[in-house]
Amino acid sequence: MRRRLTVDEYVEGVLAANRTILAQAITLVESNAPAHMETAQEVLNRLLPHTGNSIRVGITGVPGAGKSTLIDMFGTMLCDQGHKVAVLAVDPSSTVTRGSILGDKTRMDALSRNPRAYIRPSPAGGSLGGVARKSRETMLVCEAAGFDVLLIETVGVGQSEVTVRSMVDFFLLLMVTGTGDELQTMKKGVIELADAIFVNKADGANKPLALATKEQLNQMLHYLQPATEGWESRALTCSALTGEGVGDIWSVVGEFRETTEKSGMLQKRRQTQAVAWMNSMVQDSLYARFYAHSGVKQALPAIKQAVAEGNLSVTLAANQLMKIFEAGEP
Amino acid sequence: MRRRLTVDEYVEGVLAANRTILAQAITLVESNAPAHMETAQEVLNRLLPHTGNSIRVGITGVPGAGKSTLIDMFGTMLCDQGHKVAVLAVDPSSTVTRGSILGDKTRMDALSRNPRAYIRPSPAGGSLGGVARKSRETMLVCEAAGFDVLLIETVGVGQSEVTVRSMVDFFLLLMVTGTGDELQTMKKGVIELADAIFVNKADGANKPLALATKEQLNQMLHYLQPATEGWESRALTCSALTGEGVGDIWSVVGEFRETTEKSGMLQKRRQTQAVAWMNSMVQDSLYARFYAHSGVKQALPAIKQAVAEGNLSVTLAANQLMKIFEAGEP
Repeated sequence: MRRRLTVDEYVEGVLAANRTILAQAITLVESNAPAHMETAQEVLNRLLPHTGNSIRVGITGVPGAGKSTLIDMFGTMLCDQGHKVAVLAVDPSSTVTRGSILGDKTRMDALSRNPRAYIRPSPAGGSLGGVARKSRETMLVCEAAGFDVLLIETVGVGQSEVTVRSMVDFFLLLMVTGTGDELQTMKKGVIELADAIFVNKADGANKPLALATKEQLNQMLHYLQPATEGWESRALTCSALTGEGVGDIWSVVGEFRETTEKSGMLQKRRQTQAVAWMNSMVQDSLYARFYAHSGVKQALPAIKQAVAEGNLSVTLAANQLMKIFEAGEP
Repeated sequence: MRRRLTVDEYVEGVLAANRTILAQAITLVESNAPAHMETAQEVLNRLLPHTGNSIRVGITGVPGAGKSTLIDMFGTMLCDQGHKVAVLAVDPSSTVTRGSILGDKTRMDALSRNPRAYIRPSPAGGSLGGVARKSRETMLVCEAAGFDVLLIETVGVGQSEVTVRSMVDFFLLLMVTGTGDELQTMKKGVIELADAIFVNKADGANKPLALATKEQLNQMLHYLQPATEGWESRALTCSALTGEGVGDIWSVVGEFRETTEKSGMLQKRRQTQAVAWMNSMVQDSLYARFYAHSGVKQALPAIKQAVAEGNLSVTLAANQLMKIFEAGEP
């Protein structure tokens, strides 16, 4: 049986970028066992002063958009430029589908063998909230280990894009090129979250279509609320086959970083994200306490139904539930 | 001093569509006095079986889009067709600005003198949440009084459109016609909420521009997530000057109602809205209790700052706060 590491050993190992301990620290952070959670929080708090020194880039796109191939090429390019790249995934479906993304590292063949890169599959374990908490904390561990570029990959499952958007600095939407009709099949509502859209597979016979799609997207972005205050979201093309345009991703990220650092928006977003995250954890806890209350549990179904059917006023229903809750456990 | 009405008198008066008692009942519902709130909830619960028989239409648009003039004409048209029309407003800024909308009824001259119409200005009183609660309950009172068309007007102040969207069946965005550039000055993110967009002032020399804007909007709507499942949001033109297209508003609302009643979406939306409203009231109460806790109040500023500055892990911060809360008042 392997000896459990001490908090000191975790912290020192991560800060020394020891890959074995890094992996163990992330496993600790991902654990749902109460004993591990306490240790994990001690470790995290010790690592905190060493975090925040990366650019956090979220990447989404429908299956088939070529995310893995692009991340493989893009990540390798960054490593060659001297960066240290960590690739994480947020995929709440992974428990069921055994990992629709990053299930095996073979999909990012070059990057997974690169000593400057670290690829971590999506944590197993149920709810999007749970997966998100783990991924957020894994980001911090990776930053403490010296990774200066974090790529957070997600697929369009439910609210996962919104969740990833809430934990990254920059959000990239990867699209497949195609006709206007294909454009419509993509998940709606995601365009609004993107700081940049890259139309992939802009190569060969496909290139004119990709360029047309890019134009259409740029027109549309004009009318949408910008994902980041003070930054104009834009569409570009790239090809993970020829490599054309892949370097532009980094240029756009760099320009974004410079603009938002100068305006203070980047720091403000991170602070807002952290406080919002804390609030949502508090809210979840309050909710959990409320719904675990035996009196509330017993009364809720009938009250909810009465409200839905219009037989009980909403205010009265809420008051009744709060009275039951405030009376304490029977 | 006026005698306070009994619950029975309120209920019977509203159901008999007695205008004086209707106004008093709404004033009761809008009151923040604890004694009134209890009576109000009794009245509301008695009225509930008589509610829900209207179509609830939200209307938004920037100042200058011509909302009042259009509602005046549209509402009068509906009254002439035999409908009973109530116009309410949700304007959280009204306390400060002394009513940026519906401050005086003279803006809807014809409608305010129509015996089949009832116009109610935005309730005073602070937060959007408070204004929204009052408006929702006023809607129910109006339905019990036999109004079969509710028009809920709002201006683009903060989150007010999102709030109104969450309380109506159908959401209409009124736009000013203009060049593509003007299109951009409108509040972004609102288009996504609309079941229909009407480009107003489509008259005279302005008409070609209005038609072009309509086309542009229809193209854009194609790519956005629909505001209502199973309904294709659309753009049209109208003129509150010539009256052209004003009748189309009612046709579109009618088509929407038929489509969503048939698919069950309308009933589902109302049920979801009621339960969501209850949940948000419970959440607000839980939050209020949490933040009113003296220990939490004392600890929160430092913890929040530590989280924002990255000196305290979010999970640890949330745990600390919950421990303080769960320990009870000192």
